Amino acid sequence: MNIMKKFLFFLPALGFCAAAHGQDVFKKDFTKPEATEVWEPKPKIVTPGVNGAPPSDAVVLFDGKSLGNWVMAEDGKPCQWILKDGAMTVKPGTGDIRTKQKFGDCQLHVEFRIPADAKSSPDHNNAGNSGVYLQERYEVQIFDSYHNETPLYSNGQIGSVYKQAIPMANASSKPGEWNTFDIYYTAPRFRYNGSVEQPAYITVVHNGVLTLNHFEIQGTIQYIGMPRYELHDKAPLRLQGHGSAVSFRNIWIREL
Amino acid sequence: MNIMKKFLFFLPALGFCAAAHGQDVFKKDFTKPEATEVWEPKPKIVTPGVNGAPPSDAVVLFDGKSLGNWVMAEDGKPCQWILKDGAMTVKPGTGDIRTKQKFGDCQLHVEFRIPADAKSSPDHNNAGNSGVYLQERYEVQIFDSYHNETPLYSNGQIGSVYKQAIPMANASSKPGEWNTFDIYYTAPRFRYNGSVEQPAYITVVHNGVLTLNHFEIQGTIQYIGMPRYELHDKAPLRLQGHGSAVSFRNIWIREL
Amino acid sequence: MNIMKKFLFFLPALGFCAAAHGQDVFKKDFTKPEATEVWEPKPKIVTPGVNGAPPSDAVVLFDGKSLGNWVMAEDGKPCQWILKDGAMTVKPGTGDIRTKQKFGDCQLHVEFRIPADAKSSPDHNNAGNSGVYLQERYEVQIFDSYHNETPLYSNGQIGSVYKQAIPMANASSKPGEWNTFDIYYTAPRFRYNGSVEQPAYITVVHNGVLTLNHFEIQGTIQYIGMPRYELHDKAPLRLQGHGSAVSFRNIWIREL
Amino acid sequence: MNIMKKFLFFLPALGFCAAAHGQDVFKKDFTKPEATEVWEPKPKIVTPGVNGAPPSDAVVLFDGKSLGNWVMAEDGKPCQWILKDGAMTVKPGTGDIRTKQKFGDCQLHVEFRIPADAKSSPDHNNAGNSGVYLQERYEVQIFDSYHNETPLYSNGQIGSVYKQAIPMANASSKPGEWNTFDIYYTAPRFRYNGSVEQPAYITVVHNGVLTLNHFEIQGTIQYIGMPRYELHDKAPLRLQGHGSAVSFRNIWIREL
Repeated sequence: MNIMKKFLFFLPALGFCAAAHGQDVFKKDFTKPEATEVWEPKPKIVTPGVNGAPPSDAVVLFDGKSLGNWVMAEDGKPCQWILKDGAMTVKPGTGDIRTKQKFGDCQLHVEFRIPADAKSSPDHNNAGNSGVYLQERYEVQIFDSYHNETPLYSNGQIGSVYKQAIPMANASSKPGEWNTFDIYYTAPRFRYNGSVEQPAYITVVHNGVLTLNHFEIQGTIQYIGMPRYELHDKAPLRLQGHGSAVSFRNIWIREL
Repeated sequence: MNIMKKFLFFLPALGFCAAAHGQDVFKKDFTKPEATEVWEPKPKIVTPGVNGAPPSDAVVLFDGKSLGNWVMAEDGKPCQWILKDGAMTVKPGTGDIRTKQKFGDCQLHVEFRIPADAKSSPDHNNAGNSGVYLQERYEVQIFDSYHNETPLYSNGQIGSVYKQAIPMANASSKPGEWNTFDIYYTAPRFRYNGSVEQPAYITVVHNGVLTLNHFEIQGTIQYIGMPRYELHDKAPLRLQGHGSAVSFRNIWIREL
Repeated sequence: MNIMKKFLFFLPALGFCAAAHGQDVFKKDFTKPEATEVWEPKPKIVTPGVNGAPPSDAVVLFDGKSLGNWVMAEDGKPCQWILKDGAMTVKPGTGDIRTKQKFGDCQLHVEFRIPADAKSSPDHNNAGNSGVYLQERYEVQIFDSYHNETPLYSNGQIGSVYKQAIPMANASSKPGEWNTFDIYYTAPRFRYNGSVEQPAYITVVHNGVLTLNHFEIQGTIQYIGMPRYELHDKAPLRLQGHGSAVSFRNIWIREL
Repeated sequence: MNIMKKFLFFLPALGFCAAAHGQDVFKKDFTKPEATEVWEPKPKIVTPGVNGAPPSDAVVLFDGKSLGNWVMAEDGKPCQWILKDGAMTVKPGTGDIRTKQKFGDCQLHVEFRIPADAKSSPDHNNAGNSGVYLQERYEVQIFDSYHNETPLYSNGQIGSVYKQAIPMANASSKPGEWNTFDIYYTAPRFRYNGSVEQPAYITVVHNGVLTLNHFEIQGTIQYIGMPRYELHDKAPLRLQGHGSAVSFRNIWIREL
C-alpha cells in the first residue's frame, strides 16, 4: 500500500518570512518534477454563471426584484431609489445608497445605464453622473463620456478612479444602453498604529475593455484637496445618487 | 484679457522622477477643485463588442474561419491543427502553435473546450491538457479540472500559472462545453544588462470568475526545475498541443 | 476674452522607459563584456573626512563654534540653546531648533550626549529625551535607553522612528558619553494631487551599529493618533528640545 | 507500507498578518497614546566598539593576527594570502579566499588598502583590482579609482556592485592609504520552487560616504553576460585575489 500524504500550507506570495534560510527549499532535488508541485490547498469549486448569471459563490446585491439589500447611505433608512422594470434608478434628491453588508477584497459586477437624454452640461449634474464606491470611499466614476465633447477632465471621466486615475480607454455605451463594470479589488491593509501598510488596488473592465490594471488607489476620493487614507475595516458598497437618473441592475459581488 | 496657462507635469505612478522637489505640486492651491484635475491625455475611444464580439481595437487572432494568423511553434510552418465548425482543434502529434504577430502588454480573450470524453488519467495526457502561453513562455494551464478527482497538483490545475500559482477558484465548465479565459497581462521589463527590472504580472478571469489577481510571474514555465527569466522582447502568443484534442475559438487580443 | 490653455504632459515610468520594447538591450551581443558596461555618468569625487571630519561635499550644520545655522523651530528667532565647550545643549523651556536651510534626500551625521545624571523617570522628561527630525516631521528618537530598566515602549526607545519602528539593537553609550547617528534618508515623493507616491525611507546606524535598515516611514510622527503623510517639499532638520539637557556636536549633512 | 509526510510551513507576509480584517487595530482608541505603543520585543543590547573596535555581537573575521577563519575559495584549502603587519594581503596567483562560516543578512565592516604603486593600466590587473563578495556571489568592487583617469566603466569603479550599480560618489583614499567599506546587506529570499521571492539589497558606505543606498542586486555578478539569480542558502564572504596586492584588515560582521 502506498499512502502518500502531502501537506503544504501555501500562504501568500508577499513578504519576508516566506523563504527564510534553512527552509526545505534548499534541500529539494530540483531535477525531479515533484520539487515544484504544490498539492494543497485545492482551489474551491465555483460554478460559473451562464448568460450573465452570477457565479455560484456570489452574493447577489441586486437581482431586479428588491431593494432589500440597500439603505440610504446617509442615515441607514430604507432605500428610496426607484425599483422599476428590473432596474433600480437614482431618485435625484435622495442621495447615495449603500449595501447593508460590508466587504473587503472582492470581485464586483455592476450593470448601469445612463439616461438616453443625458446631455453634456457645464455643471455635469445631468450628464449621467454617478459612481460605484468600493468600501464607501474609493469611487469608480460613472459619467456620460460617450458624448466626449463634454468638457470633463480625463481623471474624472467614466471608468476613472475619480481624480486619481485616467482610464486607458473610453468604452462607453451610448446613453440609454447598458454598461458593465467588472471590478477586481484589493482592500487596503493597515498597521497596528493605523498607518497604511498596503494601499488598495483596483482593476476595472468596462464593457469588456480593460480600463485600469492594478491601479494603486491613493486614498479616499476627494472633490477638493488631496486623497488621504483613513483607517477602516470592511465597509459597504456605495452607489452615488447625484442629479442624474442613472439606473442599475444585475449587481453581484464575490468576497475574495 | 484673461490668459490663463496651466502647466502640470504629470509624471507617472512608478519611480522617483514623478515628484521631485521643486515641482509645481508644491505651489498648487489645494482648496480649489482644479488643483486635482488632469485634462490630458484623453482616453482613447474604444467601441465595446456586443454579444461576445471583440472590442473595436482588438486584433482578431482566430475568428473561426482561418488558421492564417498561426504557425507551428517549432518550425514556423503552416498551422496543422484542425479547422472545423468554427473552431480550431489540437491535432495530437503536431505540437504547439503560435501567432505570427508578437505582443507585449495585452488584454487577451480566449475560448476553449476540453473534449467531452476527457477522463482523468494518470499520465494527464488525455485529461484536456493544453495551455495558453503569453509571450511563448508564461503558461496559463488548460486541464480537465472539472473532474476534480484528477490527482493533479494544485499549481498545475486549470487556470494556474503552471507550477507557480494556485488559482483562487476552479470555475471549470463541463468537458464538452466552452470555457473563457480573460487575461490581463503586463510583460516583464529588462535592464540594460539583461536583468529583470520588473517581472511579468497576470490577472486571469476564468468563465467570469477571478482566479489570479495581479500574480507576479516568476519566470519561464518549467516542468522540471526552477522558473527563471530570460531576456526577451515582444513575442508571439502560443497554444499548447499536447495529447488531448482541445478546441479553441474566438481569440482576440488588445495591445496595451 | 478668456483663453485657457492647459498643458499636461503625461510621461511614462522611468523604469518602463528604460526597458521599453524595441530598446537597445534586445540588440546587444551579450557574449561581449562591453554589453554590460556603463560609462556615464562618472561618480563625483568626494574627499572623505579624516578622524571624524566631514566629507568634502558636506554642509556643516554645527562645528562647535556657532549656532548661526539654527533658529528656534516655533518662530524662526535666533537659537537660544547653549553653546559651550564645542557643543550646543538644549536649554529646557526654549523648545526645538531647526536649520535655516532645507533638505530632501540626505546623509546625516549627528553626535549627541545624554546628560550623565539622566535617570529613568516615570514622566520620561529627564531621561535624555530629545530627537532628530528629518524634514521637521520624521523623528529618530534620542532617549536614555542605556538604563534599560526605563519602562519605555520599544518603538519609543533610542534609535526608533518614534512610534513606528523598533530598532534592531540598543547600542547606547553611557549617559555622559557621546553617541553618533549616521542616517541615510530618502524623502517622500508626492503625486500631482498631493497623495504619497513613495513614502520616505530611513537607515540608521547608532554608534556604528545598524539599527534600522531602509525602514519605510509611515507618516509624520504622532504622540497620539495615527501617522499620516502631509504634502511637503524640502524642509529643515529639526532637533527636539524637551526637558533634558541633551548636547549635540559635529553635525553635517550631504544632500543626495 | 510507504507513508510519506511532507510538512512545509510556508508562512505569509508579516505585513498581511498584521493587517487582516477584524484585527485589534479596528478596536483601538486612537485618542490614547497607548494605542500606538509597542512593548515587545525589546531591542537587544549591543555594546558599540570604541576607536574602530567591533561591536560586542560582531563575528571578527580578521583581527590582524590569524588567517584561521579563511580558506582558499576554489578548494577550501588553507588560506595562502600573506599575513604581515596586522594585514592580510593578496598573493597574486593564489586566487580568492572565503570565510569558513556562512552568512545571510549582515552588517559588514572591511578595511582595505590598494598598493601605493598601483597605476592605471590597460589590463586593469595592477590597478588595485579586488572585491568583496557577499554570499560568494554579489561583488562590491575594489579598484584604484583614485587615479580617476583610469579608463574604467562607471559600473565597475570602486564601490560599484560590479556591472550593476554606479556608485553615487567616488570617495577613494589615495593608494597606499586605508579605505573602509561599511555594508548593510539583505540576502535574497527564494520561493518553494526556487524562484526569487525578493532580490538582495545592499547599502554601501565608503570611507564614511554613502555610495549605494538600498540598491537592488540583480543577480550573481557576471563579467560577461546577464546577471541571474541562482537558489542559495547562507554562504561565505569571499574576497577576490586578482593580480594586485590589495591588503585587508579589521574585518567583522554582524548577523542580522
